[in-house]
Amino acid sequence: MTFQVYDTTLRDGAQREGVSYSVVDKLAVARLLDEFGVGFIEGGWPGAVPKDTEFFRRARTDLDLNHAVLVAFGATRRAGLGVDNDPQVHGLLAAETPVVTLVAKADLRHVQRALRTTAEENLAMIHDTVTYLVAEGRRVFVDGEHFFDGYRDDPTYTSSVVEAALAAGAERFVLCDTNGGMLPSQVTAVIADLTARLGVAPEQLGIHGQDDTACAVANTIAAVEAGVRHVQGTANGYGERPGNADLFAVVANLQLKLGLPVLPAGCLERMVRVSRGIADIANIAPDDHQAYVGAAAFAHKAGLHASAIKVDPLFYNHVDPQAVGNHMRILVTEMAGRASIELKSRELGLALADHPEALNRVTKRVKDLEAAGWSFEAADASFELLVRSELPDGAPARPFTLESYRILVEHREDNAVVSEATVKIRIGGERMIATAEGNGPVNALDEALRVGLARHYPELRDFELADYKVRILEGSHGTGAVTRVLVETADGAGRDWTTVGVHPNVVEASWGALVDALTYGLDRART
Amino acid sequence: MTFQVYDTTLRDGAQREGVSYSVVDKLAVARLLDEFGVGFIEGGWPGAVPKDTEFFRRARTDLDLNHAVLVAFGATRRAGLGVDNDPQVHGLLAAETPVVTLVAKADLRHVQRALRTTAEENLAMIHDTVTYLVAEGRRVFVDGEHFFDGYRDDPTYTSSVVEAALAAGAERFVLCDTNGGMLPSQVTAVIADLTARLGVAPEQLGIHGQDDTACAVANTIAAVEAGVRHVQGTANGYGERPGNADLFAVVANLQLKLGLPVLPAGCLERMVRVSRGIADIANIAPDDHQAYVGAAAFAHKAGLHASAIKVDPLFYNHVDPQAVGNHMRILVTEMAGRASIELKSRELGLALADHPEALNRVTKRVKDLEAAGWSFEAADASFELLVRSELPDGAPARPFTLESYRILVEHREDNAVVSEATVKIRIGGERMIATAEGNGPVNALDEALRVGLARHYPELRDFELADYKVRILEGSHGTGAVTRVLVETADGAGRDWTTVGVHPNVVEASWGALVDALTYGLDRART
Repeated sequence: MTFQVYDTTLRDGAQREGVSYSVVDKLAVARLLDEFGVGFIEGGWPGAVPKDTEFFRRARTDLDLNHAVLVAFGATRRAGLGVDNDPQVHGLLAAETPVVTLVAKADLRHVQRALRTTAEENLAMIHDTVTYLVAEGRRVFVDGEHFFDGYRDDPTYTSSVVEAALAAGAERFVLCDTNGGMLPSQVTAVIADLTARLGVAPEQLGIHGQDDTACAVANTIAAVEAGVRHVQGTANGYGERPGNADLFAVVANLQLKLGLPVLPAGCLERMVRVSRGIADIANIAPDDHQAYVGAAAFAHKAGLHASAIKVDPLFYNHVDPQAVGNHMRILVTEMAGRASIELKSRELGLALADHPEALNRVTKRVKDLEAAGWSFEAADASFELLVRSELPDGAPARPFTLESYRILVEHREDNAVVSEATVKIRIGGERMIATAEGNGPVNALDEALRVGLARHYPELRDFELADYKVRILEGSHGTGAVTRVLVETADGAGRDWTTVGVHPNVVEASWGALVDALTYGLDRART
Repeated sequence: MTFQVYDTTLRDGAQREGVSYSVVDKLAVARLLDEFGVGFIEGGWPGAVPKDTEFFRRARTDLDLNHAVLVAFGATRRAGLGVDNDPQVHGLLAAETPVVTLVAKADLRHVQRALRTTAEENLAMIHDTVTYLVAEGRRVFVDGEHFFDGYRDDPTYTSSVVEAALAAGAERFVLCDTNGGMLPSQVTAVIADLTARLGVAPEQLGIHGQDDTACAVANTIAAVEAGVRHVQGTANGYGERPGNADLFAVVANLQLKLGLPVLPAGCLERMVRVSRGIADIANIAPDDHQAYVGAAAFAHKAGLHASAIKVDPLFYNHVDPQAVGNHMRILVTEMAGRASIELKSRELGLALADHPEALNRVTKRVKDLEAAGWSFEAADASFELLVRSELPDGAPARPFTLESYRILVEHREDNAVVSEATVKIRIGGERMIATAEGNGPVNALDEALRVGLARHYPELRDFELADYKVRILEGSHGTGAVTRVLVETADGAGRDWTTVGVHPNVVEASWGALVDALTYGLDRART
């Protein structure tokens, strides 16, 4: 049977704390998943959730999928109700998807105590709903909710649920670890026992893992090693509680470790882009430490490693980062010695190795700054300015010198909140005073500075603040709290760069990062 | 053999991007790990890293461990140098720890190309260093670096490394998945092959996993299932790249899933507190989605689940959250229906169920506010004020009414940066004007407000801002960027509470959260 990669980011993954997709968001996520090459995109529960109904409606005209088919998710018919009278089931048909996935209770205790019906009626609900949808021309998958807990408690009944679904015409029965309590060896044992008991092939089964034991990916791989050929997961592992199986790690392990080509050729290389695109839409900061796709997944920090990596990068990476669209990074940190800083500089095209004295000075300055709260790990542009300032050619001159700035934030008696900034700067011999408003103190300061610089630096018009991150560094290191600001600036031509500023005052920290950003960007625009 | 739980948070875990422990931090982390009941705490590399040398020196007087012993980490002697002439080896002895862990190269390619020595000399280095340290009265563990990659490439040589270490007197040989590329089934197979080849018992082996395939915890469990009785990991999985095996998930799985009592009785219940304590010291925001210990590890959001949870909480939790010191949470989110909000209110001691109209109004307001960027998931105090405002008794009155505030931030010509805030408020019939300075705009505002309130509310003196978090919510949902501020306030008597504010202007968002925090805290102090 064909291997099925089944994504449920838009349904089960949307249970993640803090996530809320608009219909437009859902369409955008579906496009990214299709680019990634998954076979099935579970879009939501039409009929039950109005936004999902609308998603399936708009998908018919607005979504042009190359690899994936859309799946409507729903439940078996209600207890005691004829399937053709069940509006929930009609909602599934109305979504007009080629595939429908039905959730069915696979644990008798949940049947009796949560669903409040009988063992027999639950089996009849599964049978009736599957046959009805199959007769309507749908491919049907059945998700066995609480399958593993049910199988532990009462394997006979839980097996009869699997049997009922497959006998009624379900294409796959998906073993769901709904509460996420399983370990890989247990998954292996249950699949062997179930298939022997029923005489079904493991290819007729699917696996849906949750990460409550931190084993969701491993449980999924174990099921595939046991013969299962349908894996469910979500982008970046988003989901309720610790989340679902991270589909990216699952797929990369299947392709790169087990040699199963589960995606169309050329798709795996898009993984990092798809992962970060979906994180952007979900409005969740990407996890730098995520396997395969994280910014730190192939980042090396220890001085020991960094010097050895020069010998052969693949000695220190478990796979070629480019296979998943990632790249190796050398981190500049206080633990890093001269070797890391030299390697990082070379990555940026700076010949620090030819200037040992400069390398010493840079190493010392990085060490001192990081002790004071700076971090250059994400701020390549600030790091480059620092390195260049120690090289013979020097760093680019600041485009201006600051005399002073002043920011006023008022909550007025009429309840209006206003922010206004004035900067006094010198450009060459000329003194400029500029004032601007903004939606907050830093935005006002940024605007005022741009007004002051506009006449001398018209290319600034194209720069925009792409991201702004604030981190309060607690005084747990005995130094008093400071604020670290990271600013990402884009030039409108597809290039962006990140700078850092640190100060006890968030405004001054932001100012430092803004000035670095403009200095770096103007230098790049003019060379 | 005794089961060994071996923590390397302070050595390998310190490779994590952004982590830098002071000596005081390291002592505090060691105390927490000891409370958690680990058997071994690897404290660092004495001699090679000055901070680590100092840590071991201070540990002798300042650290009183109940369960754990300290371990010094270092390398085998240098190639071509007598072990008693090697200053690095002397550094290990000088740390005066009962245990020394030596890293040895277990992959012949690394021996030849990174270490630049011969296969034979590497074995001699292992033999000489182990026997020397054992003769000096140390228990010795050997970490086989790149063991799994080496075993795949040249099992004969890698086996000879294991043999050399054990023959020389090493108590355990630790199989290190240094590049993190393994899957559980592969770990199982290699251990079976290695033990058969050498005729050693798996109890003489240890396991050290890295999370590059998202399988570090599962790989560790697989090794234990294969007979290994020494597991290495780090608190919260901190470590280079995607990190090390998360010792918390490993230990919880071993105790609660495999029934192995690897910690002293009563220790597992401390896990959440230890996890968050170490996160605080490392200055890393806790991962809400971490298995077992995350704030969301037992959090339920879906309306479906939340209503069913009333039937039996253990139907929806894979273990009892209290077993690891966690608790179940009901999340208040836009996906949540009335059932979740009612359940959450009950958790807070509010009888919303008795007032169906109030429940409707709260549900509607939560929905609207969350659509505008609010989040009550972490802000229980703001949520309680909201619920009470709809109940017959009402919310506590605001301690004051605001007329206006004004904040000035200046970077002056002398480069001093000053922040000053003035608030104009009314308390009862009295008008108060108060001005204060702060190290940033929000701090100045907080200080000015406290000055204004001090005479009427002396209990404010004990309140302190325990944490302040800023999140920029990007305008990806078409609403324009807003800033969400979470403020955690503590009352100095062990109680703390969190409030939320949202506004396009960070100052006004902070103001909202501060006012909620004072309102809630003063009400609690007076009832």
